[in-house]
Formats: sequence, structure tokens, C-alpha cells
Amino acid sequence: MTSSADVVRLAERARAASWGLGQATRATKDAALHAMADALVERGAEILAANAEDVQRAEAGGTPAGIVDRLRLTTDRVEAMAQGLRDVAGLADPVGEVVRGSTLAGGLELRQVRVPFGVVGMIYEARPNVTADAAGICLKSGNAVLLRGSSSASASNEAIVAVLRDAVATAGLEPDVVQLVPAGRHDTVKALMRARGLVDVLIPRGGAGLIRSVVEESIVPVIETGVGNCHVYVDAAADLDTALAIVLNAKTHRPSVCNAAEGLLVHRAVAEVFVPRVTAALSDAGVTVHGDATFAQQAGVVPATEEDWDTEYLSLDIAAAVVPDLDAALAHIRRHGSGHSEAIVTSDQGAARRFVAGVDAAAVLVNASTRFTDGGEFGFGAEIGISTQKLHARGPMGLPEMTSTKYVVTGEGHVR
Amino acid sequence: MTSSADVVRLAERARAASWGLGQATRATKDAALHAMADALVERGAEILAANAEDVQRAEAGGTPAGIVDRLRLTTDRVEAMAQGLRDVAGLADPVGEVVRGSTLAGGLELRQVRVPFGVVGMIYEARPNVTADAAGICLKSGNAVLLRGSSSASASNEAIVAVLRDAVATAGLEPDVVQLVPAGRHDTVKALMRARGLVDVLIPRGGAGLIRSVVEESIVPVIETGVGNCHVYVDAAADLDTALAIVLNAKTHRPSVCNAAEGLLVHRAVAEVFVPRVTAALSDAGVTVHGDATFAQQAGVVPATEEDWDTEYLSLDIAAAVVPDLDAALAHIRRHGSGHSEAIVTSDQGAARRFVAGVDAAAVLVNASTRFTDGGEFGFGAEIGISTQKLHARGPMGLPEMTSTKYVVTGEGHVR
Repeated sequence: MTSSADVVRLAERARAASWGLGQATRATKDAALHAMADALVERGAEILAANAEDVQRAEAGGTPAGIVDRLRLTTDRVEAMAQGLRDVAGLADPVGEVVRGSTLAGGLELRQVRVPFGVVGMIYEARPNVTADAAGICLKSGNAVLLRGSSSASASNEAIVAVLRDAVATAGLEPDVVQLVPAGRHDTVKALMRARGLVDVLIPRGGAGLIRSVVEESIVPVIETGVGNCHVYVDAAADLDTALAIVLNAKTHRPSVCNAAEGLLVHRAVAEVFVPRVTAALSDAGVTVHGDATFAQQAGVVPATEEDWDTEYLSLDIAAAVVPDLDAALAHIRRHGSGHSEAIVTSDQGAARRFVAGVDAAAVLVNASTRFTDGGEFGFGAEIGISTQKLHARGPMGLPEMTSTKYVVTGEGHVR
Repeated sequence: MTSSADVVRLAERARAASWGLGQATRATKDAALHAMADALVERGAEILAANAEDVQRAEAGGTPAGIVDRLRLTTDRVEAMAQGLRDVAGLADPVGEVVRGSTLAGGLELRQVRVPFGVVGMIYEARPNVTADAAGICLKSGNAVLLRGSSSASASNEAIVAVLRDAVATAGLEPDVVQLVPAGRHDTVKALMRARGLVDVLIPRGGAGLIRSVVEESIVPVIETGVGNCHVYVDAAADLDTALAIVLNAKTHRPSVCNAAEGLLVHRAVAEVFVPRVTAALSDAGVTVHGDATFAQQAGVVPATEEDWDTEYLSLDIAAAVVPDLDAALAHIRRHGSGHSEAIVTSDQGAARRFVAGVDAAAVLVNASTRFTDGGEFGFGAEIGISTQKLHARGPMGLPEMTSTKYVVTGEGHVR
């Protein structure tokens, strides 16, 4: 059994190991990432065997098939994890980047330089590939990482971390830069949340309940990720073919992810034509529409309750309403949106400007699907999560978002 | 008496007013800042009369003269507050700045744009000039502000905020973008700390106790400011005249501020010459040296206790020790430093590089006094505080640090 004191010891070891990693060159870090990738593939059998235990336990416990599928690793999935690490090796090193620099009035040289946070705590659910992804991103950004996965994936995570630690060591880095925090007891999450001074930032990834509890209880700074109650607003001046394609893509392309649309707002001026058309198309795609009074007149539409407007379905469901104008759409989004991604479909430049200015979210999309809010789509090459908070990082977080900065001030005996 | 519900109502009004302010043009905001400055001067008598009440109450209550002096306003000090607002008007508007932009593979245009946080809560002590400074910086960065000053300055703060609100209204902005949260009850601080969703960020400025309690209790994101246990390390290869000048400046130029030096570390190789010299010079300047065994051999040195190494004196005191080498200096700073400002004096380029890389602090200074860690000295034009945390902002915070960002993605019907 793991106690809080054990977690503190892991964190102390991570902190000690982080000093060396923070000063490691890109060459060393990339060599470690390639070694990690190679080891995952070479020792794939070991990982798959451990994963089979987790899968068996989940199935025996009656876990729904969808969740078991997310838990399951295959040779292809292990190869994809390895490829992810190689991709991170190919990305520029954020550490040492000079963000800003100038020579001050008295001749002092000022440089603001990117530096690692130090120690990052990841708290996440289900999918074991997050273990390798997070380890790779943290290592490249110079951060030691404490990985606290879910107990359902504990055998898989133990196997993956054992492989990664061996590989890190062969590359000449301290293996304690990658450590697994034992799952199975909520205590270990609590201990991470209390480890201010040892852990620099916690990143929870998972369901809304997990994220809320970490945000509320942690005294370690948190980067909030992922809850997405995203809307598509079809304006009076929308091209309706475009609108239909965007609504369908945003809802059905991958319903289980945070950038999928959960709400549809239609301007009154186009409602008569668009409401029947979009309802039919959504129904054909297997989507249940939870509609307001206007939508509810269409066949198959379920009348929406107040709760629907605030629900992140993550399934083939969408809440749909007609709004009198753009301001009403903005008001609805302010009230019910989660600050993730909000899209407008319009040919009216003025409406687009007003929507972009008036929406307070990580991403505002004009004539594009909400599904584009993604580190890969944005060209970041790697993504540790999508921040829905306003401090530090907002939207998809790549390598630079996993760093802090430090001012370096150089003089020749300057005093005030 | 003010209840938590009253604070929530203030925060709701701030939130509602923040939408308009966030979209106000620079011209409107600068006009408001000039109106605020003019009003402070024109209605100076009103402010001084209110301040006289606070001063009288403080004196009657036996408040130490130094604190009464920080509380006291004069015509000159009111003019300085007004000038501060005019200076902020002269600075570039951070809102709308495109931080990053590109065209994605499929032709989508991506822009990362600076936007205001929304509502900022300031919790601060004593000096009433912070009221005007914070209001100006928040307004220019497009943020509504809730000002929670200390009860000792409550009459002054009420008068200043009344003047500022009238001026904001004449410039066509909602007066609720600047609001005072009544002091006198800790409840109102607690209510601010619970106002997640209404208040976007809390910035505590003041003593270590205030800052710690906000950091630990708040569920609203916090930017931690100001505690400075700063060191000057005099290396084996230091020019000793330069070292002496920097130590004296860092300790004595303004001992009460966070970027003053509280610790002195001297490399063993120069200790025999430098320890007597620096001790004599510090004593001549009225500084009490709390020294390790080597320093304690000098006349007037008080033997240091373990506690001294962790103390932010904010007075004419310094903790001083001889270290065997640069690594020992780094280890001491890691253990006892507060991550604010750390200086090395050396002519050895390699030592400077190792110190810069090895110190984990907001600012690392080479051959310069710790006193340079300051928004004014860095050329930021305005400063809301000095962050000692790693998330979001680190070091002096100017206008850009008072913003978040938003991704704007523009396409022509793009779907995945």
C-alpha cells in the first residue's frame, strides 16, 4: 500500500532528478526519446502481457466495451506510442528559447528565457498511451513527471513506465525523471495535490468530476483541461450547405472528444429552412436532437430540458435552439459554454467580427468545425491537453506551454 | 456589514461590466485613464480629507510611524498617482496583440490574440496608491477589477474609488469596471477566493502570511507575488570592488522591498580578503550581519541561526555565509531561496553560465544588483507586482501579463 509519505518521496526524487534534466541538451533528450521509442517496440510483448491483465480484469468487472477498447493495447497501438515519442524528438526544444530581449537604459542586457517548470504531475484516466505521450512531452520540455494513471490501467502503466525508465537511463539521464505514482487509492492523488514546493504544476486529464475535484482541492497550481460544451452558431447570413457540413462534422466526426459540438444555435431568419434540414441530416447520422420548441416540432426531436444546455454529451446527442439574433447566441454561449471552442457559420464579415470579439473561449472558429481545436491540427506536433483556463495556457498545449520563463540580467557591476 | 452574498453581487456586476471594457478601443480606455488622473488631482482635497481620517485612526491605535507614513497621502503623492495613470495611458494596448499566427496545412488561418482575463481581484495591504495603480493597469488591459484593500486605508480607498468611478463613467465606460470590496472583515477575502467563474484571477500583494493564505485557500486561480529571499553570491573570480558595491546596493538601497538582498554567500577562495571588508562596509552602513562561523569571527557579527537562512528581513539585516564552491552556493539557494532574484558576481564566464543555468528563480543577475528586478527598471512602464510562481507570469508583471489569449481560426467551410 502506498501512503502519502511515499508519494512525497517520489516527488522529492523527481525534484532532485529534474535539476539535471532541466540542463540536459536537446541532443541528450532526443537520444532518450528515441531510446524510449525503441524500447517500447522491443519490449512490446511485456507491455501487451501486462495490458492483457488489465483488460481481463476490466471485462471480468463488467466494464462497458467502449472503455475496455480504450484500455486495450495492440502491437499497432504500441508502435503508435513509439512513433509519438519519435515525433516529439523531431520538435524544436522549447528550453532556452529567448522569448524577449533588450538592452536596458543603463546598459544592462535583459533576456527572458524559457525554462522547464521542474516537476509536472499528470492525473489521468483509462488510456495507457497517455503514459508514454506525457512522459515524452515532459522529458522534451525538461520536466520530470509523476504519472498518476487510473487503477484500471495499472499493470499496463507499470510495464510502460518500467520500459521507459530503463531507456532513459541508457541515454544517460536519471530514470527518476519518469515515475509512476501508484493508483488504486485516492490518497495518492491527494498527496500530489498537497505537494506544493515539490510539484510545480498538476495537469488533470479526464472526466469533468476528476478535473473539478483537482481544481478545487489542489494547492499545487493546476492547468485545467478539457471540458468542452462547444456550440455551432448558424448565423442569418450563413451559407446553409456550409453550415450543414460543419454541424455534421463538429457533432459526428468523433463524438467522444472535447472539441465535438454539443450545442447548435440557429438564427431565426434561417430557421424555417435550416431547422428541418439539419434535423433530418443529424437524425440520418444517428444523432438524437434535444430541441427547443421550434426544433421539437420536427419528427424524432426530444424536447430539451434546462439541463441539456449545460451537458457535455460526448455521444451522438446535441442540444439545439433557435435564437432571435447574434446577441442572443452570444448570451447563450456565455451562460452555457465551457470556454473551449465556439464556431460561427456566416458570410457576414461584421457578424464574424462581433462573434469573435464577444465569445470568451480558448478558440473561436469562423466557418470551420470545432474539431480543429487540437494541437495536431494547429501544427504543434504534440499536445499534452487542451486548457480551458485563462492563466498560463489556453487552448491546445504543446511543448512551449510546458515551460516557464526566467529573466537573465547581465551587467558589469550595475547598481541602482 | 458586508456579507459573502454582497461580494458575489459586486463580482457579478464586475463580470457584466467586463464585457464592454474588454471590447473597448485603446482610445476609449486612454481617455478614461486621463479622466481618472485629472479627477484625482481636481478632487485631491476630498481624498486627502478621507486619508486624514485613516491616518488619525492609525496613530490613535498606536500604529508604528513607518506604516503610518506608507498610509499617508500628500498633494505630491496624489499627483504621483495621477501621473502613474497618465503613464499607463501612454503604454501600448496589450489587447488584440497577435502573439502567434500561421496558415495551417488545409488553408485555415490561425491567430493567437491577447484578450483580457475578464475580472481581476486584487487583495493588498496598507498603501492607498496601489488602489489607483491597480485600477489603471487593469483598465488598460481590459479587465474589470475588484479592489480589496486593507481596513486601515478604507476611508482613503473609498474616496479614491469614488473619484475613479465617476471619471470612468464620464469617459463612457461602465463604472462597475472599478469596484471596492469593503475591508474590515476577512469574510470578503474568503468570498473573493470562492468566486470561481466570476473572478478570473486573484493577485495578493502584501506580507508573506497574506500571500500564503490566499494561495492555499483560493479556488480562483492565483498569481503569487513578492516574497523575496534574494542572495548575492560572490564567486572566487569576482572583482571584489564590484562585489562590494553590489552587495551594499542590494542590501541598503531600499531594504523594505522584495528585491533587496537578504543573503550573502562568499566563495572560500576570496573569504579571507572579502569577509572582513564586506562586514566592515555593511556595519558602517548600519547593517546587522547574521553570520556563519567564519563571518562570526568579525566584530559586530551576530551568529546566524538556521532560521536566518530562510528569513526575508525587509530591514537592515543580512544572513552571510562562506561556501566551498559554486555548487554549494547553488545548493544553498535551492534550499533557502524564494525564487525571486539571485545574483552572482564573477569575472569567470563559465561560472556565470553555470549559475544562470543552475538557479531556479524569476530573475538571475550577473554582475548586477538584485534591485534591478522591477517592472520600471525592465522598461515595462507599469507593474502590478512581481510574480514568484512559475505558471502564467514570472518576475515583474506589466500589461501583457494581465491578459490571456484566444485562438481565432478562420476558414471557408473547413471540416475534418
